[in-house]
Amino acid sequence: MSNAAAASQTSDLTTPTPALWLELNRLEANIRSMHGHLHALGVTLRPHLKTCKSIDVARLLLAAGAERFTVSTLAEARYFLAHGLTDLLYAVGIAPGKLAQCSALMQAGLKLTITLDSAAAAKAVAEAANRHACHYRVLLEIDCDGERAGFAPDAAALIDAATTLEKSGCHVEGVMTHAGGSYHCHDSDCLQRAADNERDMTVAAAERLRKHGFAAPVVSIGSTPTAAFAHDLSGVTEARPGTYVFQDLVMVGLGVCGLDDIAISVLSEVIGHRAGPGELVVDAGWMALSADRGSAERGLDCGYGLVCDVAGNVLEGLLVKHVNQEHGVIAHRDGRPLEMHKYPLGCRLRILPNHACATAAQHAGYHVCDSSVDTGMYWERCTGW
Amino acid sequence: MSNAAAASQTSDLTTPTPALWLELNRLEANIRSMHGHLHALGVTLRPHLKTCKSIDVARLLLAAGAERFTVSTLAEARYFLAHGLTDLLYAVGIAPGKLAQCSALMQAGLKLTITLDSAAAAKAVAEAANRHACHYRVLLEIDCDGERAGFAPDAAALIDAATTLEKSGCHVEGVMTHAGGSYHCHDSDCLQRAADNERDMTVAAAERLRKHGFAAPVVSIGSTPTAAFAHDLSGVTEARPGTYVFQDLVMVGLGVCGLDDIAISVLSEVIGHRAGPGELVVDAGWMALSADRGSAERGLDCGYGLVCDVAGNVLEGLLVKHVNQEHGVIAHRDGRPLEMHKYPLGCRLRILPNHACATAAQHAGYHVCDSSVDTGMYWERCTGW
Repeated sequence: MSNAAAASQTSDLTTPTPALWLELNRLEANIRSMHGHLHALGVTLRPHLKTCKSIDVARLLLAAGAERFTVSTLAEARYFLAHGLTDLLYAVGIAPGKLAQCSALMQAGLKLTITLDSAAAAKAVAEAANRHACHYRVLLEIDCDGERAGFAPDAAALIDAATTLEKSGCHVEGVMTHAGGSYHCHDSDCLQRAADNERDMTVAAAERLRKHGFAAPVVSIGSTPTAAFAHDLSGVTEARPGTYVFQDLVMVGLGVCGLDDIAISVLSEVIGHRAGPGELVVDAGWMALSADRGSAERGLDCGYGLVCDVAGNVLEGLLVKHVNQEHGVIAHRDGRPLEMHKYPLGCRLRILPNHACATAAQHAGYHVCDSSVDTGMYWERCTGW
Repeated sequence: MSNAAAASQTSDLTTPTPALWLELNRLEANIRSMHGHLHALGVTLRPHLKTCKSIDVARLLLAAGAERFTVSTLAEARYFLAHGLTDLLYAVGIAPGKLAQCSALMQAGLKLTITLDSAAAAKAVAEAANRHACHYRVLLEIDCDGERAGFAPDAAALIDAATTLEKSGCHVEGVMTHAGGSYHCHDSDCLQRAADNERDMTVAAAERLRKHGFAAPVVSIGSTPTAAFAHDLSGVTEARPGTYVFQDLVMVGLGVCGLDDIAISVLSEVIGHRAGPGELVVDAGWMALSADRGSAERGLDCGYGLVCDVAGNVLEGLLVKHVNQEHGVIAHRDGRPLEMHKYPLGCRLRILPNHACATAAQHAGYHVCDSSVDTGMYWERCTGW
């Protein structure tokens, strides 16, 4: 739509601003799309709940067939267990200081799997297994692209760690990785190669464990970009994408989705006009949007977010150029002054997130909407650690 | 202290990680220092509570003589009113959609002052004053450096807005500004000039209002950097710094304080080692640290934060180079591999924030400590809008 149409959409909404809006129809379509794709590739989904942190979103994933899930904090594990999810992978390398909490969660009925990537961590887990009389389930993290963490698939330490764990009565369930390097890709060929590499590295590590006598039934891969571009996941048993439920501008930049697939946005209100440069001031700063600048590194730099009218139509060329704590400055991408009368004081605008996980994390919950209409449903998020 | 001393400090603390630590002695010293400085300049403090969002911190400000405060959200206004603070300035240009909430807060006993910076906003406030039978108190925002918002001190619209407001029964209390441009300074001369300019522009605007018959008793300036470097605030009646209570790496870069003055840090635990590059992985990513990169633009780039041992001693050269949601990668500034045995798995480290407001906003509250010892006190923060 043209920018002109925005003028009519002023203050007819009562949701307090800034607010995190979630478009239910887009969320459901994103879930259908990823689940259909991975199902066709013969892989089980273990969706990562770090993006949504919401039992209401998780219930849609359950309805779409997901039976196990991934979390990024033990607070998420406690929250989702309390809401009935009993099979969770905690996909951050285990801190020794968290093992007592893990034991308590397992005693409370959680089928919890933890991850680690060093002989030292295997030793710490084995010692805690004795101390807490707890047989931890463990996935060994594999470094598939040098991005962050993990054993090299051919490392001697991988076999040593598995041996240490099994001797202590722990269960080596298999291997997992996160293809963080895929976020540096600029085209679909690169993403397909990243997906192939992620598969090859994890399958190789699992086969090595099996050759040494470990069953290692699980081969788990991560990341929305590689899951979206994978075309052959032979040997992989599960995938753990998370961002796909909402999508974001980084995913648009990577070619994973289109702007019309982004399911969350920040509703804001115009509170001022910068007459000189022809810019708008809205009541959404980094506190509501996050300071994430992820879109700057890939594809199109979207500032702190692209701008839509309240119905979700992208206003061509408009982006959030600058943020303070509670102020956002909206400008035209090419510096051209905006026609201020089209965006009067009190006009409401929606801002698409660079990074869905980061923007959602700034809010206590979701105002669930059907396109531009607030349904009145509010879905809370889990917070903390 | 040398890096070697870090080795001994492993896992002797029970606070779950990551956690926001607040050093009480530094907090108290920062308050004493700023209040003494502004008192000597004859200016009343109206501290900005957007940094701390905590009634416990506000109580220390009350004890130091502050009687009125500044907030950045109406959620803060509700929270602090509920805890007994009755004189609050909401220092973000008013959104028309928030005026009904403002009236409700005033009816509940809050002496609330709002701000605006356009004839259109004055008209919206005047209309709401009639609608809600509410005589809003208003400060007119002045643009002192072209950074964000405000009337030019010599704008015709400034007088028009004041006239519109007083005709509707609202009270034009005076003028306020925020010297956001001071954050671009690289030396103390620049900061002193910014402080002088902030004073001159607001005093000029107030005098213009007075010449037109408005009493305009309040001349209110903002920002920790200009408050810290001001040497003559003649004509100014109040100052609204906020960050000074905690300080941060941006303030160190600006020369406002030293590293030893920073009162908050994020306690984290080593969860892995990147043997190739010689880097550490800790359990504090952008979720715990924020994605703020403010220190990159001024003084020394500190990545996503500088690193201390648990006692708060800075580990020379170490910084958080990269963050994911729950992972932080710590490296040496010059790329030299770290001596891994000094930072074993489970070793606890504290990370100083680039931007105190942003890092604190990622946490639900403060673990109050006396240097390296958790006192067991937990101070909650207000959240949302």
